Amino acid sequence: MKTRKPIARASSSTSFSLPSSSFSDMPRKSSLFKHTLIATVFFLFVIYAFFSTFFNSPSDSSSSSSSSFIELDRVFSLENPNDFPQRVKVFMYDLPHKFTYGIIQQHSLARGGSVVSDVTTLKYPGHQHMHEWFLFSDLSKPQSDRLGSPVIRVTDPEEADLFYVPVFSSLSLIVNAGRPPGSGSDYSDEEMQNQLVDWLKGQEYWKRNNGWDHVIIAGDPNALYRGVDHVKNAVLLVSDFGRLRPDQGSLVKDVIIPYSHRISAYTGDFGVKDRKTLLFFMGNRYRKEGGKIRDLFFQILVNEEDVVIKHGTQSRENRRAASRGMHTSKFCLNPAGDTPSACRLFDSIVSLCVPVIISDSIELPFEDIIDYRKFSVFVETTTALKPGYLVSLLRKVPEEQIIEYQKAMKEVRRYYDYTHPNGTVNEIWRQVSQKLPVIKLMINRDKRLVKRQLTEPDCSCLCSNRTGIISSL
Amino acid sequence: MKTRKPIARASSSTSFSLPSSSFSDMPRKSSLFKHTLIATVFFLFVIYAFFSTFFNSPSDSSSSSSSSFIELDRVFSLENPNDFPQRVKVFMYDLPHKFTYGIIQQHSLARGGSVVSDVTTLKYPGHQHMHEWFLFSDLSKPQSDRLGSPVIRVTDPEEADLFYVPVFSSLSLIVNAGRPPGSGSDYSDEEMQNQLVDWLKGQEYWKRNNGWDHVIIAGDPNALYRGVDHVKNAVLLVSDFGRLRPDQGSLVKDVIIPYSHRISAYTGDFGVKDRKTLLFFMGNRYRKEGGKIRDLFFQILVNEEDVVIKHGTQSRENRRAASRGMHTSKFCLNPAGDTPSACRLFDSIVSLCVPVIISDSIELPFEDIIDYRKFSVFVETTTALKPGYLVSLLRKVPEEQIIEYQKAMKEVRRYYDYTHPNGTVNEIWRQVSQKLPVIKLMINRDKRLVKRQLTEPDCSCLCSNRTGIISSL
Repeated sequence: MKTRKPIARASSSTSFSLPSSSFSDMPRKSSLFKHTLIATVFFLFVIYAFFSTFFNSPSDSSSSSSSSFIELDRVFSLENPNDFPQRVKVFMYDLPHKFTYGIIQQHSLARGGSVVSDVTTLKYPGHQHMHEWFLFSDLSKPQSDRLGSPVIRVTDPEEADLFYVPVFSSLSLIVNAGRPPGSGSDYSDEEMQNQLVDWLKGQEYWKRNNGWDHVIIAGDPNALYRGVDHVKNAVLLVSDFGRLRPDQGSLVKDVIIPYSHRISAYTGDFGVKDRKTLLFFMGNRYRKEGGKIRDLFFQILVNEEDVVIKHGTQSRENRRAASRGMHTSKFCLNPAGDTPSACRLFDSIVSLCVPVIISDSIELPFEDIIDYRKFSVFVETTTALKPGYLVSLLRKVPEEQIIEYQKAMKEVRRYYDYTHPNGTVNEIWRQVSQKLPVIKLMINRDKRLVKRQLTEPDCSCLCSNRTGIISSL
Repeated sequence: MKTRKPIARASSSTSFSLPSSSFSDMPRKSSLFKHTLIATVFFLFVIYAFFSTFFNSPSDSSSSSSSSFIELDRVFSLENPNDFPQRVKVFMYDLPHKFTYGIIQQHSLARGGSVVSDVTTLKYPGHQHMHEWFLFSDLSKPQSDRLGSPVIRVTDPEEADLFYVPVFSSLSLIVNAGRPPGSGSDYSDEEMQNQLVDWLKGQEYWKRNNGWDHVIIAGDPNALYRGVDHVKNAVLLVSDFGRLRPDQGSLVKDVIIPYSHRISAYTGDFGVKDRKTLLFFMGNRYRKEGGKIRDLFFQILVNEEDVVIKHGTQSRENRRAASRGMHTSKFCLNPAGDTPSACRLFDSIVSLCVPVIISDSIELPFEDIIDYRKFSVFVETTTALKPGYLVSLLRKVPEEQIIEYQKAMKEVRRYYDYTHPNGTVNEIWRQVSQKLPVIKLMINRDKRLVKRQLTEPDCSCLCSNRTGIISSL
């Protein structure tokens, strides 16, 4: 901020049209130096005016509105500030540590770590739902490091369009995961959820709009499952709707976010020369619900010579093996797991291994801007389970088409990279921003709706009316 | 366009950073004239670059994308073109005249008019659903007259985000309205609808995305009722959902548009000095369905001395009387009609007569940006019908609050003015633009959805969960 103020002061004594008239009025004796200086100052002014209008930070918004920039604003917006939507303003709650860093501490304690005096020095552990860490980190950065973001973080809640609740809900879920019975800590994820709900319901800005303008991350399909009924008005950032009822989560209210991929990106060339395996899968063979199909795939695919299908759980070694497999296969099998989504899809994409998605109820991140048919094969489950069907379908795909798929994957890869400066994090905020009109509509409408005797809930829906395909190939 | 091309050519040989370095590298002997010229050209270039980026017209978009402006684009967007959404591009179908001007001809013929050789010379007749005329006229204007619009009209459908179908569906509905039996023409609105559906289904761009990216106006709640099942994927511009099933129309897919108000705006001062009547209503006493409450209001209000409640249908004289009544009353009664909405609400607002809305299922235009509680009173129907309740409630409202309501109405008045340069028409396009992300999502998702055995339709919903108020006062 400090570096910008002197320029702002200089410009406040200058109107937008002054420089051009100065040029023509300038006395002929003026030195070249002076002339150049004026031109340069003008150039800097135009650039500054530009940035101050489009990237205005919260702290100087009050001063700029009363400054001479009003002329310029009018040029930009033609008296309609809604023509070119301003960036959405987000306030991030400074949550009590028990909902953020304190959970990292608990996760560490359950694994033999020790108590630290300052929990904010702790490192968030890597796992497939660490999106909550990336979003928290992004909004924690100084505004000067966030210029390219679709949202502006504001520090005054009165200025905010939306309120972000940066709870580490997915990490909380796994604090004691994988610990032998009796060896974990006495940490309770459910208790954390209850406390979070109580805390939120006590917040002035939660109560103001009944939570509609809040954004809550619950990446793991099981995260926040106990509290979601109390916070369902909020925009939920979720991996899928596998554990949510239609009145709790939906495509029109919520945002589907990608898992944080766990294997390294493929950096080699397009093509199939180094991809001898037709179809690859490595993961848990036995899953609940929709994931039961995995065992069936093992049975029908295990004897196909150009197919690699292996049972394996998350571990560093297995991730290395999966990485090798995905980098050397043409297609990667993506069956449903306990819920319709899985991290594997994003591992496949960064590996340029064409995903074969067999998960009829899957929802996909950023589907308004990403057409997944350009790089994925969708097959309906019962058809895919017919012996011989899948391999025969995939063997027929010509090399050129696989290369097209690979090129398309490379194009969209940044959308699945949480560490890319214009990657997943920015895209999630853009998606959240797009919800604002419908959020504001629901806020205003809810407050004036009178008591009605309705036999069904008062819902606005968007319904698909396609009967569906068997395979996208 | 012609005036802009030379500038575009001149600038294509110049990179964005050149002018500033030119200033410092310039030989000292250069003439002041040359110096000034360069500065002026640079100034013009910056201004041009500005406008070309934000107001780029369809016809030069292909050339600009490959020009040197790519440097500038990067400055604007920090490599994220999604930060500042571009204006949405709309293609308006050049419909056969039988769906547009031909309907004006039919309306005229049914009223004794004669056949004209060029139907495009006909004047659209004034009525409360003439929004279809205003939107058609707006998109028919040259691009240079539409610079402040939230949407750009494109003439190449390949460039379009959305497709507007400018059918005069509301006028078609009333071609023979009010004609004594046997005296009207043999024009058939139903036949027009059938032909429109056939025509649309034959269009390449309708078939491409199954209609999701189309925008169709059906302002009168009964307009297009026969064809709507075939075109329900489109964004419908409607007055309310009174005649639509939830799978045909909804707040998340469609846009609620205001009626075209029929009485003159009140131009006097705020206050109640010249508003002796407490509550005013003039309109049809006998309506179907929700409108049956009107007759009940007549019964309970007719003897209140500070209430004016009169039966009257649409006519020039009645409009004058209604105008006088609304300009001299504090509150205007807005009961449901055959459907939840009525033109009267917008007449009330421009009259600065506080609307008393008694229509439990009403949906309101632009409710994301307009909080109707700031200038309207909502009362639940059965409560409002209790003898004495309404007048006693309204008599208690202090003068200062009425003035606050009036000020709020004056602030939003332009949103209900179809002739305002930044009024209803712009706001409708802005609302339509906001649907684009969800439209694109549905387009991509529909195409990859595999066949599923669903017991219920595949819908994404946004549900209100408030129990509701009795009165907003």
